[in-house]
Amino acid sequence: MKITKLQLGQFDQRERAHFINQLTGFKPAMLVGTKSREGNENLALFSQVMHIGANPALIGILSRPDTVPRDTLTNIKQTKAFSLNQVTRSFYPQAHQTAARYAEHQSEFAATGLTPLYDGDFIAPMVKESPLRLCLSLEEIIPIKANGTTLVIGQIESIDIPEEALSNDKTVNYDLLDTVVVTGLDTYYHPTKIARLSYAKPDKPITTYEDSDA
Amino acid sequence: MKITKLQLGQFDQRERAHFINQLTGFKPAMLVGTKSREGNENLALFSQVMHIGANPALIGILSRPDTVPRDTLTNIKQTKAFSLNQVTRSFYPQAHQTAARYAEHQSEFAATGLTPLYDGDFIAPMVKESPLRLCLSLEEIIPIKANGTTLVIGQIESIDIPEEALSNDKTVNYDLLDTVVVTGLDTYYHPTKIARLSYAKPDKPITTYEDSDA
Repeated sequence: MKITKLQLGQFDQRERAHFINQLTGFKPAMLVGTKSREGNENLALFSQVMHIGANPALIGILSRPDTVPRDTLTNIKQTKAFSLNQVTRSFYPQAHQTAARYAEHQSEFAATGLTPLYDGDFIAPMVKESPLRLCLSLEEIIPIKANGTTLVIGQIESIDIPEEALSNDKTVNYDLLDTVVVTGLDTYYHPTKIARLSYAKPDKPITTYEDSDA
Repeated sequence: MKITKLQLGQFDQRERAHFINQLTGFKPAMLVGTKSREGNENLALFSQVMHIGANPALIGILSRPDTVPRDTLTNIKQTKAFSLNQVTRSFYPQAHQTAARYAEHQSEFAATGLTPLYDGDFIAPMVKESPLRLCLSLEEIIPIKANGTTLVIGQIESIDIPEEALSNDKTVNYDLLDTVVVTGLDTYYHPTKIARLSYAKPDKPITTYEDSDA
């Protein structure tokens, strides 16, 4: 069935938001850890996360408009630092719970039972329960005119990953990490591997990586 | 194990690109369909795709730097139109094959056996094999200073989805669509549902949607 822009405008507002949010398919579930200038820890679930580039190593996260307080964005502006922590099957309900509107200065770590973890003097807390944790420094803040959202780009300062989850050729073993994905705002999925495919060339059929590299 | 920015700089360049690309976890696999001013069709696989907002309905895709010809970006600038098509298990190798460097003006549709589909006079071709297809008009082009990439934001003009894949409350049935996700540049996964969770509130434990809405 075809749904036009005009028909979209007639949807109930909540259902429309729910629907549009699902159209980009499966998204990563990442906890963003920050700390305010005053020392208050904050933890927020983001699914709008994008690989921006490898050299320098850059990742972008999308912050919604400033119509309500956005602690994550405020803290990043203040301290120039944040962490990204992949969410796994073992604690995804706690990650989801961080989205609740807690009282000001109440830490989502304490409220959800997740554990802050610090690396040396890097100011932003990571999540101990996450097996893949990144520390990032603020690189660029990009306002999106079309709807008042903000793309926050960080450069990776360090990566924490279990040694057994990283192969010699720098492939991350996601089967071991047990990472989840999300559709829309509330539905969690667990991905299982189909295949790693060969590098695409015009005159060569696609094979699985194991075939082509054997 | 901890990997610092300094250590990252010592990685082999290809392995570094491969590694960093995997750190954002699972990404959607979307075919972007465009047409040049001269009428040449183009189809390219993108995994850097981001929900920007629901009202207006906006989606962003990231285009890499213009060091080699980027037909998709050129075509979008010329025609102000593109399509986004979710990739499913039934044709993901063909979608992967669109990344091959075909001769100029050779259509990736013809080369990979995927079928262009047009909606009225909307200029960009969709992919007939995809069950969830979006037509978008160019809304904003945002240069990212940090590495020369470009965030292209489109507004959804129309959505094509099987009627049986959309529930009354506008939930998309991804189990039926059979959409794949990708990690890094070449590894495909198939997600299976764990649970839909309740709306997070400070004083209420998280339950599954079925529980909370029964």
